[in-house]
Amino acid sequence: MRLFPKETDFFEIFDKTSENLTRAAQQLVDLMENFVNVEARAKEIHEIEQDSDMLTHDIMKKLNKTFVTPIDREDLYALASRLDDCIDLIWAVVDRIAVFKIKEPLREAVVMSKDLLLTAEVMHKAISELRQKNYAHVQEHCIEINRLENRIDRSFRDALGRLFEEKQHDPILVIKWKEIYEHLEDCSDRCEDVANVLEAIVLKYA
Amino acid sequence: MRLFPKETDFFEIFDKTSENLTRAAQQLVDLMENFVNVEARAKEIHEIEQDSDMLTHDIMKKLNKTFVTPIDREDLYALASRLDDCIDLIWAVVDRIAVFKIKEPLREAVVMSKDLLLTAEVMHKAISELRQKNYAHVQEHCIEINRLENRIDRSFRDALGRLFEEKQHDPILVIKWKEIYEHLEDCSDRCEDVANVLEAIVLKYA
Amino acid sequence: MRLFPKETDFFEIFDKTSENLTRAAQQLVDLMENFVNVEARAKEIHEIEQDSDMLTHDIMKKLNKTFVTPIDREDLYALASRLDDCIDLIWAVVDRIAVFKIKEPLREAVVMSKDLLLTAEVMHKAISELRQKNYAHVQEHCIEINRLENRIDRSFRDALGRLFEEKQHDPILVIKWKEIYEHLEDCSDRCEDVANVLEAIVLKYA
Repeated sequence: MRLFPKETDFFEIFDKTSENLTRAAQQLVDLMENFVNVEARAKEIHEIEQDSDMLTHDIMKKLNKTFVTPIDREDLYALASRLDDCIDLIWAVVDRIAVFKIKEPLREAVVMSKDLLLTAEVMHKAISELRQKNYAHVQEHCIEINRLENRIDRSFRDALGRLFEEKQHDPILVIKWKEIYEHLEDCSDRCEDVANVLEAIVLKYA
Repeated sequence: MRLFPKETDFFEIFDKTSENLTRAAQQLVDLMENFVNVEARAKEIHEIEQDSDMLTHDIMKKLNKTFVTPIDREDLYALASRLDDCIDLIWAVVDRIAVFKIKEPLREAVVMSKDLLLTAEVMHKAISELRQKNYAHVQEHCIEINRLENRIDRSFRDALGRLFEEKQHDPILVIKWKEIYEHLEDCSDRCEDVANVLEAIVLKYA
Repeated sequence: MRLFPKETDFFEIFDKTSENLTRAAQQLVDLMENFVNVEARAKEIHEIEQDSDMLTHDIMKKLNKTFVTPIDREDLYALASRLDDCIDLIWAVVDRIAVFKIKEPLREAVVMSKDLLLTAEVMHKAISELRQKNYAHVQEHCIEINRLENRIDRSFRDALGRLFEEKQHDPILVIKWKEIYEHLEDCSDRCEDVANVLEAIVLKYA
């Protein structure tokens, strides 16, 4: 059994969007490891985000103009929306770093960013395996995304604990970093949502 | 090609809801420009919000009792939910102003509120044009809503930047205004969601 | 008219999940009333949350492998997702209490937790009445859930007001409790979503 005819077109765009996500996550890690030129990097990630917005808009347009069954439509719509959310959230992280005039990254933010990059890379692989109908590999990648999400969640809780524990932190800095951590954690949750949609598609068609 | 038979009923309710949204946004702007009788105004907006809740409940009931195709149902459900969110968020803004006992508005909150009112007015127009099947006009209005959303997003980032920059702000005031700004920004995002649903409907039926 | 054939299986799992929600809410109330062994209780609620995750995963798998009409699928998917959110949020409340090293509960958090337990109990009843097709009772329970949601919302606003009013509160404590209150309020909103889905199912099949 094969998927609906127009599937390939959609997955070509998903492939590009998840490539964009990996690029944005790479930029985030570069920034975290070498905290210079924040504004310039924010601009680069903003361009990736704008480009991805157009890809998502393109998918939505195709979805609304193409005949697909209601169930397929839901999955494709969810996939496009959640991938777009991921990129928006990486942009939000870097944007807040710029807006809040953060001087140096906190340890857990570096760790979480690196795990988000790993997640983005695995997700990109999962999407191209789905395109090639290697369903068993898609499922393995989804399990890996879930494992990374759990790890990022633990880092997030450690980060919050340490942020509120240290006596030297002033409340304003706590507010700033709490928000940055929350965007990193949200991004990881949306990646898990993508994995759930990929698993649902595999269950229906494998 | 005409939409499904029951469409008119739904759009009559959407028309009323978006009129309510415009009234709530007008009340918000009036409050921001003339910061008196906060409690009384909050009460007025709360009444609009309660009235809109009933309209939304009415739409949902009709949606669940009427035969519409799954795809139409999704759009109508999304439209009702997002419009309801917009009104809830304007209520949340005014409610927080009352609960936090805010003494005077910050400059960016006034600017954002005025742009929300413009957005609500354009959205009301877009919904009545859709009812009259003037699809080209709907699309123009949606582009305008997107433009306003971008402007509100920039105001939001400026507002955050200034809120965290100023040395005189105490942390408690920062927490309060950060939340108010976030509700204003969320409201604008939900307006953009409404525009996206309107565009999707036009793509399917135009 | 009877629901689709596989309905019973789904509702058996929903019954278990809502029983889990009630157990988690009971643990939360026990903690609030007797603030000892926070870590141990957090661990117990985490186990309930993990168990519910598996139940939800099981429902989603069955939903993706079973033929159900698109409309039924939407309702069942929403029911599973929102119930899962409720349990996640009770876990989040207790987790934050542990992570933030909260020393004693604030009055309104106790009140909100007790009302959440009442909500969970009514929801559990509503789900078993739906299973037994006692549609009139389902609707009564949904009205009760809405009433409780309104009460929790008022408690939330009182809680926020008092949190920001009291001069002795330091900003760090305000940030911590604001987040705990928000999770309690979110949980109540997701319970109301569950009630809305239950009402929608009744409207379609009664």
